[in-house]
Amino acid sequence: MTRGTLPETGQLAYEDFEPGITIALGSRRITAEEIVEFAREFDDQAMHVDEASGARSLLGGLGASGWHTCALFIRMASDAFLLRSTTQGAPGVDYVRWKRPVLAGDTLTGLSEVVERRLSRSRPELGLVTMVHRLFNQRGETVMELRNTVMFLCRGENR
Amino acid sequence: MTRGTLPETGQLAYEDFEPGITIALGSRRITAEEIVEFAREFDDQAMHVDEASGARSLLGGLGASGWHTCALFIRMASDAFLLRSTTQGAPGVDYVRWKRPVLAGDTLTGLSEVVERRLSRSRPELGLVTMVHRLFNQRGETVMELRNTVMFLCRGENR
Repeated sequence: MTRGTLPETGQLAYEDFEPGITIALGSRRITAEEIVEFAREFDDQAMHVDEASGARSLLGGLGASGWHTCALFIRMASDAFLLRSTTQGAPGVDYVRWKRPVLAGDTLTGLSEVVERRLSRSRPELGLVTMVHRLFNQRGETVMELRNTVMFLCRGENR
Repeated sequence: MTRGTLPETGQLAYEDFEPGITIALGSRRITAEEIVEFAREFDDQAMHVDEASGARSLLGGLGASGWHTCALFIRMASDAFLLRSTTQGAPGVDYVRWKRPVLAGDTLTGLSEVVERRLSRSRPELGLVTMVHRLFNQRGETVMELRNTVMFLCRGENR
């Protein structure tokens, strides 16, 4: 059975995010330079800024900060669907699992799946969509999984 | 009762992270420029890059991406204790709650608390320390809370 996905054009609203649909997040190659740049600013443990230290660490190479992988995820999700939607942001994240290292030269792809949704009780023009997002490396291995609930306005509501 | 904290000097190892201790994360002012810079790269929803859009959004002003707040958290935790520790990174995050907006001009402080710890079953030289981290704004309101488990080598183990 082929699972549904989002409409290809037009602004996306709460109604479009039916449980069971999946959304491809496109593809993104990650370079040593951007791993080091992010890490120097935010998370400069040796394994994220130095090739040799990374190789000796649990990562086995110059590896991205897990928080950098999160930032790349929201970039990929923004380009795939959030920026053409009525999203009002998210109140948090249920969990993040950094399952495998993201190393310099890896090419990431991703898939977001709608697992459940409901209308807000306090603001009925707003819907809450719970999604599981996975990023994969070029070998198809899951490198990160996270779940969160994203708020979207219903169709026709003012932003 | 005054709660304990970490030793002020020396490399920190698993043994130092006793349940109940708290660790101050220092202070960090966040500017409109850095909010927009991070958002343009990773999370450029209008409320994170445009003052007027932010003011109309649930954030009530130009507000940082929640992922930016996470990145600022790991910066503050790195400077407060991670960079002088035997940390081996973290396998993920149990949850993140973005409880209040982080707006341009806010000054963030933080507190990390050790809630539990145990030695790794598969690698007894490695300990797993579960911590709850909170960031506050200049009014003392919690803006973000997250929990994760950080791996630290035991004292005297090779890195």
